[in-house]
Amino acid sequence: MNGHAITMLGTGLIGDFYTNTLHGQRGRDRVRIAYSRSEPRGAAFRERWGIPESTTDMAAAVNHPETDVVVVGLPNFLHEEAVGLAAKAGKAVLCTKPLGRTAGEARRMLETVEKAGVFAGYLEDLCYTPKTLKAIASVQAGAVGDVTWVRSRETHPGPHSAWFWDGRLTGGGAIIDLGCHCIEIIRNFVGKENRPVEVLCHTDTLVHPIADEDNAIALIRFESGAIGQFEVSWTFRGGMDLRDEVAGTHGTIWMNHFLRTGFEMFTAGGGGGYVAEKAETSAGWLFPVGDEVSELGYVDMFSDMFRSIDEGRAPMETFYDGYVVNAVMDACYRSAKRRAWEPVELDWRGGTTPRIASTPETYEGQVVIKREILPDGRQKLILKDPASGDFSDRVVAGS
Amino acid sequence: MNGHAITMLGTGLIGDFYTNTLHGQRGRDRVRIAYSRSEPRGAAFRERWGIPESTTDMAAAVNHPETDVVVVGLPNFLHEEAVGLAAKAGKAVLCTKPLGRTAGEARRMLETVEKAGVFAGYLEDLCYTPKTLKAIASVQAGAVGDVTWVRSRETHPGPHSAWFWDGRLTGGGAIIDLGCHCIEIIRNFVGKENRPVEVLCHTDTLVHPIADEDNAIALIRFESGAIGQFEVSWTFRGGMDLRDEVAGTHGTIWMNHFLRTGFEMFTAGGGGGYVAEKAETSAGWLFPVGDEVSELGYVDMFSDMFRSIDEGRAPMETFYDGYVVNAVMDACYRSAKRRAWEPVELDWRGGTTPRIASTPETYEGQVVIKREILPDGRQKLILKDPASGDFSDRVVAGS
Amino acid sequence: MNGHAITMLGTGLIGDFYTNTLHGQRGRDRVRIAYSRSEPRGAAFRERWGIPESTTDMAAAVNHPETDVVVVGLPNFLHEEAVGLAAKAGKAVLCTKPLGRTAGEARRMLETVEKAGVFAGYLEDLCYTPKTLKAIASVQAGAVGDVTWVRSRETHPGPHSAWFWDGRLTGGGAIIDLGCHCIEIIRNFVGKENRPVEVLCHTDTLVHPIADEDNAIALIRFESGAIGQFEVSWTFRGGMDLRDEVAGTHGTIWMNHFLRTGFEMFTAGGGGGYVAEKAETSAGWLFPVGDEVSELGYVDMFSDMFRSIDEGRAPMETFYDGYVVNAVMDACYRSAKRRAWEPVELDWRGGTTPRIASTPETYEGQVVIKREILPDGRQKLILKDPASGDFSDRVVAGS
Amino acid sequence: MNGHAITMLGTGLIGDFYTNTLHGQRGRDRVRIAYSRSEPRGAAFRERWGIPESTTDMAAAVNHPETDVVVVGLPNFLHEEAVGLAAKAGKAVLCTKPLGRTAGEARRMLETVEKAGVFAGYLEDLCYTPKTLKAIASVQAGAVGDVTWVRSRETHPGPHSAWFWDGRLTGGGAIIDLGCHCIEIIRNFVGKENRPVEVLCHTDTLVHPIADEDNAIALIRFESGAIGQFEVSWTFRGGMDLRDEVAGTHGTIWMNHFLRTGFEMFTAGGGGGYVAEKAETSAGWLFPVGDEVSELGYVDMFSDMFRSIDEGRAPMETFYDGYVVNAVMDACYRSAKRRAWEPVELDWRGGTTPRIASTPETYEGQVVIKREILPDGRQKLILKDPASGDFSDRVVAGS
Repeated sequence: MNGHAITMLGTGLIGDFYTNTLHGQRGRDRVRIAYSRSEPRGAAFRERWGIPESTTDMAAAVNHPETDVVVVGLPNFLHEEAVGLAAKAGKAVLCTKPLGRTAGEARRMLETVEKAGVFAGYLEDLCYTPKTLKAIASVQAGAVGDVTWVRSRETHPGPHSAWFWDGRLTGGGAIIDLGCHCIEIIRNFVGKENRPVEVLCHTDTLVHPIADEDNAIALIRFESGAIGQFEVSWTFRGGMDLRDEVAGTHGTIWMNHFLRTGFEMFTAGGGGGYVAEKAETSAGWLFPVGDEVSELGYVDMFSDMFRSIDEGRAPMETFYDGYVVNAVMDACYRSAKRRAWEPVELDWRGGTTPRIASTPETYEGQVVIKREILPDGRQKLILKDPASGDFSDRVVAGS
Repeated sequence: MNGHAITMLGTGLIGDFYTNTLHGQRGRDRVRIAYSRSEPRGAAFRERWGIPESTTDMAAAVNHPETDVVVVGLPNFLHEEAVGLAAKAGKAVLCTKPLGRTAGEARRMLETVEKAGVFAGYLEDLCYTPKTLKAIASVQAGAVGDVTWVRSRETHPGPHSAWFWDGRLTGGGAIIDLGCHCIEIIRNFVGKENRPVEVLCHTDTLVHPIADEDNAIALIRFESGAIGQFEVSWTFRGGMDLRDEVAGTHGTIWMNHFLRTGFEMFTAGGGGGYVAEKAETSAGWLFPVGDEVSELGYVDMFSDMFRSIDEGRAPMETFYDGYVVNAVMDACYRSAKRRAWEPVELDWRGGTTPRIASTPETYEGQVVIKREILPDGRQKLILKDPASGDFSDRVVAGS
Repeated sequence: MNGHAITMLGTGLIGDFYTNTLHGQRGRDRVRIAYSRSEPRGAAFRERWGIPESTTDMAAAVNHPETDVVVVGLPNFLHEEAVGLAAKAGKAVLCTKPLGRTAGEARRMLETVEKAGVFAGYLEDLCYTPKTLKAIASVQAGAVGDVTWVRSRETHPGPHSAWFWDGRLTGGGAIIDLGCHCIEIIRNFVGKENRPVEVLCHTDTLVHPIADEDNAIALIRFESGAIGQFEVSWTFRGGMDLRDEVAGTHGTIWMNHFLRTGFEMFTAGGGGGYVAEKAETSAGWLFPVGDEVSELGYVDMFSDMFRSIDEGRAPMETFYDGYVVNAVMDACYRSAKRRAWEPVELDWRGGTTPRIASTPETYEGQVVIKREILPDGRQKLILKDPASGDFSDRVVAGS
Repeated sequence: MNGHAITMLGTGLIGDFYTNTLHGQRGRDRVRIAYSRSEPRGAAFRERWGIPESTTDMAAAVNHPETDVVVVGLPNFLHEEAVGLAAKAGKAVLCTKPLGRTAGEARRMLETVEKAGVFAGYLEDLCYTPKTLKAIASVQAGAVGDVTWVRSRETHPGPHSAWFWDGRLTGGGAIIDLGCHCIEIIRNFVGKENRPVEVLCHTDTLVHPIADEDNAIALIRFESGAIGQFEVSWTFRGGMDLRDEVAGTHGTIWMNHFLRTGFEMFTAGGGGGYVAEKAETSAGWLFPVGDEVSELGYVDMFSDMFRSIDEGRAPMETFYDGYVVNAVMDACYRSAKRRAWEPVELDWRGGTTPRIASTPETYEGQVVIKREILPDGRQKLILKDPASGDFSDRVVAGS
């Protein structure tokens, strides 16, 4: 079983999560060289994960003769440069979220890899959580009917690294950091062929003394009429709140990825240590997560990426998806400024999706609004007279 | 212990809930006469609840010589008439939600009772659920700091009565039916002195063949900067989803009032019957509610109303509150049409509320963005240089 | 609506809970006089709840000319004396749990009230929680088929009052304090006509330096074959854990009465105060309960008691039930000592209950052990050959 | 990265789970040959998982020249034969649970592998669930203090394969099938050095027409005084209920591995198909599991096994552990028959564990039973006079 030899760009929290995943369990792929902007951080990282080499020369890392895949785990403002180097080297490139700081930047990166003909994967881990993958499959199998609404919420008390707080380096605030996850989760549920038409967004800076938003809420209207709703915050208290909800014409899905996963612990203190990402306390009632890299989607994400490389197919999440996400975020920022619905400006490659619609049932010439089953088995119909517009109810025998 | 003798106007689902509550447990108040538009429905109701009299004459019911309180549990288009009769009779009047179909109608009802000098209570049950009352008290005591965001969600598969579906009789669709609850819940959490300044609303009719909205989402911006968010739907599948979430600068509250309350039942079928309001199935995993009239707030609501009458004080929910809710709903409908933020037009009686604000801490001349406690007890500071706007981090000794 | 005038014996935590319930909401019954062994505690209690009189003379309190009901909320070793006085006064008597310290004591109290012909109710609140009442009704309606197993768990970090820790005054440790609740909850689910035949019990004193058990686990075998299982502890950490589980041949019920009821709060501290009975922390993740006196069953319990007095019928929980509970607890202590199954010695007034049994289905002369529905709609049968005892499986068309 | 080539013995449900895990994600190990007692089942399995060869000759499979690890996924009565063949071939052997049908059989298998000097791992997957691994680590780090009680519950509606129901082939009923998991989970929490001293067990056959138990409950007393409690059933309704609870002197852990993991779905039907192992319905409220092979422990289990082989160390779960489990189960069956505590007969290799004990704190010569923090910050002490044995309480200033 031959694996891949990887150039890992970046040695921060995300580099740790990625390498922990790649080197975890019985994985056959290995990081061969790590690039860090700081020599000591690179050395510590190399040591921590048993990696043969580290360097402070990004081009050297990318061009390492033994690696065939470049993983970009750098701050947002370095993505374009890194992707450019990988494309030039003719290597597969996997880039962390968000793809760019703007749709323009993402678009250039997309063009770069397409021109170079290299494999390019968008490392959007939260679309790959085991719950999300199974839920997407259920939705695609029709378990909830037509999707009418998706809520994706990602909130926590704020990022751990200084650069994250500097909109000049990242492209924005909580939307750029967290909204990118939500948008792509929503797209997977409403269907990737379902065009995001316009957005309505509110942002505010309520708690932290920064220039960018620490709270945002947005609605995304898709071509089918489905609404995606995201809530992102850097001011949430209580840990990291990752929840998704899907409503459809025939069903509902609720997912709690982090704070309530069937693992609850009370401790009077002592035996502390790391509980979970962004946990705020180490005593009282705690809600740990079993295997974070699995539950957060990293395991399935890299499996999909490497299998796709091996099989010569596109992964579930591509640079095009990353570009769509950036386009939606750009529209969010414009909407928040204009305080109204704003179109998503996008080079759309998907198809068209019809409006959610059901042909209304009729009963003796009247439109059936609703059927309710009564305790005695009979059915109560709520009916609308198409001529007068009047409503009435009628009890009929059960079917 | 002398109780009150009540004129009950309306004998539908809400009349049943109200009378069940009033006659329940060891209550000292009793319905003396019931008014129904239909004689047989009135007679059945009288029988069902052991009420001495019923009538199809609304004025006669209101003017019954032995009653001192009039409860309005009628369809929306009859509220104004009923309130007018009660005011004329000089009796205390308690009116179900929403107060009016529009702010104009609500305003007239408010003026009517104020001119007549009668006690007037707004029967907004969901502000009175035991969880909500305790949560409001916690928020008022400072447990979550400044409230930044409140989400109130009320969704189910649609109303049981025909008139509910006719916007001409109700004033609208899911917003009028369900949004009124959410708005007032939100106001209680952000503070009733906190003026609702403007709203952003999206509505759509996705599933039912009706003229009014069966889905709506809205944001309400309050003077403090806090955002209220409501989601209402007549197309939710899985039962009745009543959830509220409160985020503050120092804490978080999550409430699930109906579908997940610590009571779970699996049945292979048999022994069926009524499970809970709007439950969709009677086999498989079911989620009953212990005591619905208590959990839905009816018990505490009537206790507050009758105690307020007895003590000559205003109840927690007044006709003025009902009027504010209608004003917010009117703004929602305008916003949905205009597709942009819309001011709430309102005769505001509350005070002013300052903007959520925290004076940023400084450390050696830099602004502290965030403090994190490290496993070894030291603290990591994220700092912003006020001059350059650059961000950095620094590890310091713990306090 | 005439209510009852009550003599309240005892002014501790339980007296507070009882009076809070009786004087709560729109209740028509009132405490007329309170008895406390300490004058200042009695006076404070009187003040706290607006009670006209208090006294340190138990007999005087019981014989107060205006009261018709005596509520016993005293430590266990005073129950018999109090019940004797009430019976002598010819007044209805409601006694808190456990009825006696031993079955012998309970038996004498039962005889006392029966001889005197007074109404006697057993104040077993946890059988009256709204969830439990609805669950019992579901079980009686057949929703879970034949009950095979009931788990009742009541654990917390230990009682608040000194006398509770003294087995000489109470009759034992955690079993006497908490097991009495569990036993009666279990009886309500397996059916009160279902005789408790024998018990198997383990006790230990693991944490507190006391002579009595601070932990106990017991199995109760009923005539039908159903098993009741209780777990009680004074060493649980994390709050008060009240959970019941019912398993039946056709269904399952899970109830969480206290620590997970759909109300969750995170607070970084501040705005503290009372969270819930036996809560251990006032910061971090907290799990308050909406309306404790309702959720813990006090409201429905007193409603049943007073209605039963008014209607001249037996309440759901009688002194006979209290006696059965004491007999089961006596057997538990004997079993723990003998380390083996021990019969429940009991003057049984109930009937007989047949063994849980289902006539096995047969298929072509073989016994059907199980039917499973396959994804394609066919059914897989697990069959047993009655002659050889061999097992096999067979796939057949669906019904 | 060189992986292992595996002989897979058995092609039933467990063989599918094992191979799914081994071939899943980016695993470097591969099944080289599968053995099935049935040629067509073997061929289908080979096809299903892309395995080069299958055979109906167990010895040939074990002795395949290219494999170095033998995985035993056969019915219980074939374990000893299979382990014998692997030991003879000098190959590492990993055997599914339970190790033997009796402690005698397990003991012989242990001796066989020890004499042959081959690596031997006990495939007890449920000790390896990510939640369990993290919880064990927390307990070992002292987060809950001394463990006083562990509840492990494993119940479902009954096994899928015919042979499982035949006690002659398996060694018993629900205890042999499910209790073996619970016992080893409990041992991991109370500490493997903590000797299981004696057991108390009740079994019954309540629903299925079989000779062996379909329900059992047992208590295991460990040397420290800690109690392990397991509940197993083949008659549970509602899916597969896998829950563990740990109580300690300073904390509590609750784990729900299957039916409530933060993934909830309502479907009105349609889009059905496989939901989760032992799910009973495909409509209504469903509770799927994200990644079953990860959540059920298979992934971490095989990682530990193969890493242990590679590193020349013992795995977390060894044949000795399997033997201890069998010894406890033997004692359970004897206890159920004798209806009393029964010693665990065992060749104990562990050490000794002291009794759970805390030196009681004293206050002015009295023993402190409990400290409670009052709302005003003062502390209430419950005190015991060592001379008289009397209890009292005292309020003191806070620390």
